[in-house]
Amino acid sequence: MDPRTGLPVVAMVGGGQLSRMTHQAAIALGQSLRVLATDPAESAALVTADVQLGDHRELADLQRLAEGATVLTFDHEHVPTEHLQALVDAGHRVAPGPAALVHAQDKLVLRRALAAAGEPQPAWAEARTVHDVAAFGAEVGWPVVAKTPRGGYDGKGVFVVHGPDEAAELLERHGTLLVEERVPMLRELAAQVARSPFGQVAVWPVVETVQRDGVCNEVLAPAPGLSDELATAAQELAVRIADSLGVVGMLAVELFETADGILVNELAMRPHNSGHWTIEGARTSQFEQHLRAVLDYPLGSTAMTAPVVVMANVLGGATADEDWAGPGLDERVHHLMAHWPDVKLHWYGKTQRRGRKLGHVTALGEDVPEVRARAVAAARYLADGVVDPAFAFEHDEEHRP
Amino acid sequence: MDPRTGLPVVAMVGGGQLSRMTHQAAIALGQSLRVLATDPAESAALVTADVQLGDHRELADLQRLAEGATVLTFDHEHVPTEHLQALVDAGHRVAPGPAALVHAQDKLVLRRALAAAGEPQPAWAEARTVHDVAAFGAEVGWPVVAKTPRGGYDGKGVFVVHGPDEAAELLERHGTLLVEERVPMLRELAAQVARSPFGQVAVWPVVETVQRDGVCNEVLAPAPGLSDELATAAQELAVRIADSLGVVGMLAVELFETADGILVNELAMRPHNSGHWTIEGARTSQFEQHLRAVLDYPLGSTAMTAPVVVMANVLGGATADEDWAGPGLDERVHHLMAHWPDVKLHWYGKTQRRGRKLGHVTALGEDVPEVRARAVAAARYLADGVVDPAFAFEHDEEHRP
Repeated sequence: MDPRTGLPVVAMVGGGQLSRMTHQAAIALGQSLRVLATDPAESAALVTADVQLGDHRELADLQRLAEGATVLTFDHEHVPTEHLQALVDAGHRVAPGPAALVHAQDKLVLRRALAAAGEPQPAWAEARTVHDVAAFGAEVGWPVVAKTPRGGYDGKGVFVVHGPDEAAELLERHGTLLVEERVPMLRELAAQVARSPFGQVAVWPVVETVQRDGVCNEVLAPAPGLSDELATAAQELAVRIADSLGVVGMLAVELFETADGILVNELAMRPHNSGHWTIEGARTSQFEQHLRAVLDYPLGSTAMTAPVVVMANVLGGATADEDWAGPGLDERVHHLMAHWPDVKLHWYGKTQRRGRKLGHVTALGEDVPEVRARAVAAARYLADGVVDPAFAFEHDEEHRP
Repeated sequence: MDPRTGLPVVAMVGGGQLSRMTHQAAIALGQSLRVLATDPAESAALVTADVQLGDHRELADLQRLAEGATVLTFDHEHVPTEHLQALVDAGHRVAPGPAALVHAQDKLVLRRALAAAGEPQPAWAEARTVHDVAAFGAEVGWPVVAKTPRGGYDGKGVFVVHGPDEAAELLERHGTLLVEERVPMLRELAAQVARSPFGQVAVWPVVETVQRDGVCNEVLAPAPGLSDELATAAQELAVRIADSLGVVGMLAVELFETADGILVNELAMRPHNSGHWTIEGARTSQFEQHLRAVLDYPLGSTAMTAPVVVMANVLGGATADEDWAGPGLDERVHHLMAHWPDVKLHWYGKTQRRGRKLGHVTALGEDVPEVRARAVAAARYLADGVVDPAFAFEHDEEHRP
């Protein structure tokens, strides 16, 4: 508890945009968010009052962060499990706990757990040698997808492998790999669920996530054209995983939709890009819900606030280049507001680089193509300085099931 | 501009809840909010990264605050006009400017300006002597309302005067008074408008404000049963005032509704309690809009997100007493969330005292009595530790026109 307010202190490892947006939610709830950042210019460090500079791989820094905090939680998965266990052993509350979190940190651990539970997932194998990859490829067909078990995100650490020769170099560089069949997917979905230590769960409508170059680009809520049956199946799957792993806080289950149903891709145990739409699009945002869940407060309503909500990421584009000669950021924000007075902007305050997640926009409405066109055009204008009305539709059809 | 982000730095005088909620909006827009607080435990100082401690009556502190900021604005009206003029003369942008702001600082200045513009307002007079008050009372009938021209808020500085004798003591204590007829009002309304230096304006639906003991207790959006004609008249009045005074930023026009129409009570040139409902209840909140307006960004959509939105203040009640033996604040927040999973909480982090504005809750829905009962019951539970389902209705009828 914060003696100044009588309300909890939440310590969050990581100073990125997820901490930044969690802070907005913490302000409303009267809570004090303490952030562990590696640099004072990080997204959350720019806007929070209680910033500790340190390294999430150093136990001493984590101990200092946890001191006096009601609970310790995360904006990324990169904290070593043994450090988290040490914090738990010292009596600190850590949410999600290390035994749950490892399933979001290590893709092999996740695959084994899902296999043991009989949950749907792609065919997979653990590969330590070229022979392992060759045998798996022969079984499921080439190409296969190879992943580093730990440390990958936003398409990093994921490789398409067309034959055993390609595997050799990857194995040499990364050691043990997770290899998976290349799923003939129709599209990607995500199911968001929050779970409290008490065991209460709350699910949001299942969304479609549209990736570009391995990075989430758009989120459509609810997933257009998804049958009630499949939506319910995805929500129930997410709740089962949250329960069986003992997740505390937000869980995002990334899914492949195939002709035969859904398969689990991977998990995130924190607020996740696929849930940013909830800030305006649901009665309770994923950020507020994460705080409620890790503090064992009752969870909030996940009802949508509009029939259709689309979030589009602003990924660093042409405007992030040093030789960009068009309107600067502030001027682009002016134009954005003039052109789309009802699109909501979230800018993370980060240094601009090509491909970096710099912010997102959210549009709400009734009609999927209209709302989507609005969100994507606004995001793309911020990133690339151009308005291309055709863009929203050019790859629309290829992602429809 | 903040060199770290390429986006504006907004300096806000005052560390109260209005700054706190403005900070939430600034985070989304990528802006840096710098706050002048008198104490590090003030509401906004608890949650913002850039806090300057100082006195809003000291020019040196204001100069330090304005240094390097894109614009300087306010969460209260208590900055001396001559200091603001000095900042303007030194080349700083101040929004609203001192010539506009004085109409929210000095009720006599406002009355004179409205009279000159022919806007509807109660009969009034400037009273320097008992004779002035006696003459005015004889003209409009007793009792009259006497107000200190400056410094009043939340019912402070407002007195009901039943005869000349009562006026003597007030005049001795406060000097010149504004005296007004006691308006036979049906209810109180408020019209919110934002205006940018460019001259763009944006209005929200007119709301009903329900006062208790001179303090705003509930806000009903839109004002139930208000005719389109009167609603439009109130919005047009607010826009005219914003234009004619050259307001930059938010303007709240507090109104009396009488059998004959509307009369201007007073003005606030900043985010105002009557607009807190816009955080969840409108596409653009008054806090975001204030930032957009003072920075001369295009203004955002003011469309409502639900047919009925009710905000209820949490005013320090029985639970603020030292001998309160019931559930503590954190436990009450737990119960609130369990009982009202779709009511949105905003807690300001302030020390609890009887009658102090400690937070507010917002409920959304379709039916005024239902939404209102939910909001008021939730707020009252936080304040007094009791749930009284009859409360929302006991004074419902007396406020209906």
